[in-house]
Amino acid sequence: MKEILSTKNVMIKEFKKLHKKKYREEKKQYIIEGFHLIEEAVKANEQINWILCNQRGKNEWSVWLEQQPEEIVINVSDEVLAVLSELPTPQGMIAIVEMPKYENNIQFSGSWLLLDNVQDPGNVGTMIRTADAAGLSGVVLGDGSSDIYNTKVLRAMQGSNYHLPVIRKPLAAIIDEFKKKQIPVYGTELNPEAVSYKTIVRANDYALIMGNEGRGVSPEFLEMTDQNIYIPIKGSAESLNVAIAAGILMYHLSE
Amino acid sequence: MKEILSTKNVMIKEFKKLHKKKYREEKKQYIIEGFHLIEEAVKANEQINWILCNQRGKNEWSVWLEQQPEEIVINVSDEVLAVLSELPTPQGMIAIVEMPKYENNIQFSGSWLLLDNVQDPGNVGTMIRTADAAGLSGVVLGDGSSDIYNTKVLRAMQGSNYHLPVIRKPLAAIIDEFKKKQIPVYGTELNPEAVSYKTIVRANDYALIMGNEGRGVSPEFLEMTDQNIYIPIKGSAESLNVAIAAGILMYHLSE
Repeated sequence: MKEILSTKNVMIKEFKKLHKKKYREEKKQYIIEGFHLIEEAVKANEQINWILCNQRGKNEWSVWLEQQPEEIVINVSDEVLAVLSELPTPQGMIAIVEMPKYENNIQFSGSWLLLDNVQDPGNVGTMIRTADAAGLSGVVLGDGSSDIYNTKVLRAMQGSNYHLPVIRKPLAAIIDEFKKKQIPVYGTELNPEAVSYKTIVRANDYALIMGNEGRGVSPEFLEMTDQNIYIPIKGSAESLNVAIAAGILMYHLSE
Repeated sequence: MKEILSTKNVMIKEFKKLHKKKYREEKKQYIIEGFHLIEEAVKANEQINWILCNQRGKNEWSVWLEQQPEEIVINVSDEVLAVLSELPTPQGMIAIVEMPKYENNIQFSGSWLLLDNVQDPGNVGTMIRTADAAGLSGVVLGDGSSDIYNTKVLRAMQGSNYHLPVIRKPLAAIIDEFKKKQIPVYGTELNPEAVSYKTIVRANDYALIMGNEGRGVSPEFLEMTDQNIYIPIKGSAESLNVAIAAGILMYHLSE
């Protein structure tokens, strides 16, 4: 079995670069950390290039590790794992995964979450996880939204990117297409001209647009929707966190 | 007007210690950062000991600053602000605030969110912000839940701690008291013995318990509730983030 003990090893230096978006896009690879995410990637038949584990990881998941192709498993020192980890306490196992070669196509049916310029990685990841839990058909990341191979997004998604299509595409054409298929498109805003989400009839097919943390959904998209909706604020908070709002709306809208 | 330019100044060293829970509890003071939070604290008549701002902060909020007592405003250098800030880009203004001398009492009426051992500061803060938005009466932090004067909690609350009572108390006695007052207490769990939240009739008075990120609500509390509820997972996600689940439930339960 392959073994790497030095943090100065050439492969380790290459892997470490995958924490930067530029290198991920160049190499078409990304890093995932922790047994749960790696197990989800394997289950989803993603192409795993390497599985790196320290002694603790090897002990803890020995049965599962024996089922993996031996040539991709590398024993590493705690120091090597620590330079690749972005967690305060590294989880014993890291994998290098190939990005999918072909993007999923959007099917213009079912229920979709469209993210317009949502920037916080935790928010993007949590919304994809919630979309999965609520049974949505998929998620579209419009321009400006955080990259799903960012480690914080990967952690917050908890593997939901392996359960439903997450597609990067500019939103204008997508919104048009939903409208042509007569699927209702809902924008979200904090505006008395919008209607309360409770007035919206639940449906199997819809597209819901959530916007940037500070500025909300872009005015150009709000003008294209069938209806803009808001969540009433009853107390003194100025607004809801965008991922919380998305959760309330998806659970309300989905049958 | 007072001015501090050196990061080695004794007062600045003291303020910096307030990032540690131990010192906050000793001094009964905490740090808040950014104009929005400081404005909320002033509006709520909290006792502000000091307002520190750099040149940028002074320029940006000059009108508001003139309305504050001059003796508490300190001009500081960018370097001083940077050592006190926990943000990648400091926001130009930091305040040192006195903790409230008396804890709010719980009123055993209205709708309350009870947090059992919720550890992530972002989750705790976001749940308090959502409780505020949903019009709840208050939040009780049971043993093990993150301290609200942690800067990450303060940031996620966005000032909601100044809008509704947030009380630290062990939960067992609180649950008992709600039950004596015949206010329904709901636990949350991922368990087929629980019932879907959609079957619960909306009400003005209730107590909702949310639990630890990994282990959920403690079994001892789940046994004390009137009813344990769950949110159906329709896709392949294993669970919802606890703050998302709390948002869905509070917006469903509150009239």
